[in-house]
Amino acid sequence: MQKYDLIVIGGVAAGTKAAAKTRREKPDWKIAIITRDDDVSYAGCGLPYFIGDIIQNRGQLVVRTPETLRLVHSIDVFTRHSVLSIDREKHTVSVQNTNSNEKLEFGYRKLLLATGASAMRPPIPGIDSERIHTIRSVTDADAILAGMGSKSGRAVVVGGGFIGIEVAENLKHRGWEVTVIEMLPQILPPFDLEIALMMQKHLEKNGVRIVTGACVQSFCDKDGGVEVATSNGAFQADIVILSIGIKPNSGLGCDSGLELGCRGTIRVDACGRTSDPDIFAAGDCASTFSVTSGNEAWSPMGSTANKQARAAALTLTGTESEFPGVLGTMIVKAFGFSAARTGVNEREACESKMNAVSVTVPSDDRAHYYPGSEKIAIKLTADAETGELLGCQTYGMGAVDKPLDAIAVAITMGATVHDVAHVDFAYAPPFSTAINPVNLACYVMQNKLSGKLESIGPVEANCMIHSPDWDGLLLDPREIPEFMIGTVPGAVNIPIHEFPTRLAEVAAFKDKTVIVVCNYGKRAFEAYVRLKHHGFNRVKVLEGGTKFWPYELE
Amino acid sequence: MQKYDLIVIGGVAAGTKAAAKTRREKPDWKIAIITRDDDVSYAGCGLPYFIGDIIQNRGQLVVRTPETLRLVHSIDVFTRHSVLSIDREKHTVSVQNTNSNEKLEFGYRKLLLATGASAMRPPIPGIDSERIHTIRSVTDADAILAGMGSKSGRAVVVGGGFIGIEVAENLKHRGWEVTVIEMLPQILPPFDLEIALMMQKHLEKNGVRIVTGACVQSFCDKDGGVEVATSNGAFQADIVILSIGIKPNSGLGCDSGLELGCRGTIRVDACGRTSDPDIFAAGDCASTFSVTSGNEAWSPMGSTANKQARAAALTLTGTESEFPGVLGTMIVKAFGFSAARTGVNEREACESKMNAVSVTVPSDDRAHYYPGSEKIAIKLTADAETGELLGCQTYGMGAVDKPLDAIAVAITMGATVHDVAHVDFAYAPPFSTAINPVNLACYVMQNKLSGKLESIGPVEANCMIHSPDWDGLLLDPREIPEFMIGTVPGAVNIPIHEFPTRLAEVAAFKDKTVIVVCNYGKRAFEAYVRLKHHGFNRVKVLEGGTKFWPYELE
Repeated sequence: MQKYDLIVIGGVAAGTKAAAKTRREKPDWKIAIITRDDDVSYAGCGLPYFIGDIIQNRGQLVVRTPETLRLVHSIDVFTRHSVLSIDREKHTVSVQNTNSNEKLEFGYRKLLLATGASAMRPPIPGIDSERIHTIRSVTDADAILAGMGSKSGRAVVVGGGFIGIEVAENLKHRGWEVTVIEMLPQILPPFDLEIALMMQKHLEKNGVRIVTGACVQSFCDKDGGVEVATSNGAFQADIVILSIGIKPNSGLGCDSGLELGCRGTIRVDACGRTSDPDIFAAGDCASTFSVTSGNEAWSPMGSTANKQARAAALTLTGTESEFPGVLGTMIVKAFGFSAARTGVNEREACESKMNAVSVTVPSDDRAHYYPGSEKIAIKLTADAETGELLGCQTYGMGAVDKPLDAIAVAITMGATVHDVAHVDFAYAPPFSTAINPVNLACYVMQNKLSGKLESIGPVEANCMIHSPDWDGLLLDPREIPEFMIGTVPGAVNIPIHEFPTRLAEVAAFKDKTVIVVCNYGKRAFEAYVRLKHHGFNRVKVLEGGTKFWPYELE
Repeated sequence: MQKYDLIVIGGVAAGTKAAAKTRREKPDWKIAIITRDDDVSYAGCGLPYFIGDIIQNRGQLVVRTPETLRLVHSIDVFTRHSVLSIDREKHTVSVQNTNSNEKLEFGYRKLLLATGASAMRPPIPGIDSERIHTIRSVTDADAILAGMGSKSGRAVVVGGGFIGIEVAENLKHRGWEVTVIEMLPQILPPFDLEIALMMQKHLEKNGVRIVTGACVQSFCDKDGGVEVATSNGAFQADIVILSIGIKPNSGLGCDSGLELGCRGTIRVDACGRTSDPDIFAAGDCASTFSVTSGNEAWSPMGSTANKQARAAALTLTGTESEFPGVLGTMIVKAFGFSAARTGVNEREACESKMNAVSVTVPSDDRAHYYPGSEKIAIKLTADAETGELLGCQTYGMGAVDKPLDAIAVAITMGATVHDVAHVDFAYAPPFSTAINPVNLACYVMQNKLSGKLESIGPVEANCMIHSPDWDGLLLDPREIPEFMIGTVPGAVNIPIHEFPTRLAEVAAFKDKTVIVVCNYGKRAFEAYVRLKHHGFNRVKVLEGGTKFWPYELE
């Protein structure tokens, strides 16, 4: 029987990272990777772009081949080998070669489970149609490409999460008609509603049909395609991509009697140890923690997989190493519009009964006069008392990842908006505005926390002005040509420089709600200050302005 | 006599920001801005791009016109008015209209000096030639454009700092022959040498001639141009741009008896107060602090100006507000190559006798398979004992601003590399690699701090292998085709998978220095581990690999 110092089960992100890191720590260990797949170390996150022909060469998706792992890292790689069982007492795994059906037994000193996660396929009638695909592996992507052929057709993407949106964009790139069907009332559930609506508006502008609140009831092969019957009507498709979620592959761990954690993961400590001290787990099959709450969490992301694998490899080779966990950071891009999040969003803060305040602040992503400058919005959520940053969402056509990453560091370090307001960020016209968008967002949050600014988000504002009880004023203080370009339906225009002579026209609203709207909120804040000064008591600035208003303008 | 609650002297970044912020705090204050310029609130940082025709419309450079300040902000703006003196006792300023020569006197309750800085014009013979320009104001840029005319010619840029490099790029864009003359041994003095050399290499590749260590001795009008005589020979120019530095315009403050700070600035506290409690200063004319050392510093940057102005405006209107200072963050881009810095660099850490360690770590700026992916290098400097981050420099063709901004937050918060190694940064293929470049750089620093990695920077390595005492080995462990593309001159190739059979060939170097070089340092680290394991005692990985080797490859 072959005996290994380390056996890794699973060969994608966490598996290969853990094996390679172990090799660097222990040049003389015998290390093996066992995987049932054909490929190892492939970039699962790149699969939507492979389908969209953005990545044209299948080989580009592969980070390390079995050959590289053998040659450079001296690691034995068994592809197309399935692990049948683990004998924890004897420290052995029983393995089957899925080509030859030959059975093998290997001994281990340390074992690392990196078995990943699988796409969910709920028992909906007709779900076994060969036209219905999930997208987790290169093999899945190959099948989708084969199913698509060279002509274009109609695709239904079930699930409006991150992968669903990326797949929708890429199918559209290939010239397909695309419909996204989402069961929840909004796409991209990890975002606050207005951000999901902005992304939806953008997808629709680019020709993707979005149907929210629609539950798939059945699939039916029909006329050479599939009919997708939903609670909101039926949709015809030549191909269906199912991206409604994934579940951790914890069966092997569970069968071996290892303790399970949240969401069906294999439970690990911060060092990646399972309930068996000689067995570690990392990546999509394993639990982790929320850095901010300390609670157990599941973060099936390539980025988390690599960090967990590194900590586990260090620990199992003798250098105790903790990975404290995640902030729930995510980012998605479609047709140039991006949205990112870290920490908690406003809805989550509210659901958790945190004493939190949120504010949305638009900005240019670089000097307004520098070519390629685009608008972004930063939505911060902070503790109402201390100003500690709890979460951030960024969205828009510009570079949303940069401010988000800065805030991710801030949240990790327990920073307040007061700390971050002063950070000396890199400034030159090709990179930023002189007032950095993150500094600016913190300034506005400071104003809101100190009571110098009252503001309202677009979802709440839209509810309010469409309520039968609405008796307030929607005021646009911009110059007439700006107002004519487009404003929130129902807004009355009084340019700010005419306030001294014309505020009398709206004096009846002194004790009613006045919502002030401009392009981005800056002019509205100028108007806000003057209105307060003139005795208007319930003024609110519309956050995000017309530019980030997720509904129709007029 | 007109009496104002606030008079602001100077109307560019700090001046207009302070006035506008004061307006939002005090809707009923009388506020004036007095400036000797024609323009207010212009983007000085955009001037090089205006010359390069990247910004085609002069109006784009103007953030706020005097008209906007009057209409929207109700601020009196006096352009072409020069302040002759300040009477601190009587709280008045004496002003001259530079068009009519009319003299005026204004009273103030609070005064804010935002008089900026001026380009240095040292008394070099011939410096008054009309073909020698500085570049600080829109008027300067107008003069340069007029001097350039529509034809192209030869330009000499004196000074290889940030502005000099930006101007060189933009003149080249316009089809001019450009020579940059720098007195110091390297361009971009705020960077470590290898980074300056990489930028120099890139500029030269794009046709800009760079002459370092050359002192300008005289200018002489000759044959319709200027001859620039230097310690390294003479250069002919049709136009000369002088960008050798600036000095704060603190004359008015000095004449009024205000205390001066470092570098000839007007000394202010963190709230922007000068030694006179009714006089504030902000922007390029004022001092500030280093966040990390607490020492007084000068940061003549548009970004700092805005932050100082905001703190001063809040404080002078009754809300005490501190701006703690700067990290010395800077960023520059030319022909697609960017370099950024924050905190201290390796040279500064060494000069300050800090117990610091530096390491350079290359990375992709997004998934290697995603279109547009580019290489960047992150050079971290950290405390050798605690791992506290002291500084960061990033450079390359990719997005260097994002990692830098994240590190700027980290340094501000006193974070260690161990803290930042785990930060949950945004990951999706269009935005990052699965192992984020900042996480990766921290991992490598952790390896270096713990003694698991010994490495050497390219400048030190180059010195060492060119020393007459060099008796070590330069080893390239890549596969033959990779080695053939280019390596550091003198490197011997033994592919890593041949180590088991071929290390005997180099056994003589077991107690000598072995420098291992590959593309980026990753393969070299694999080789390092094996070499150490086989008894090579003095192995070092070449940081940055061939990709960031600032000298010639062979």
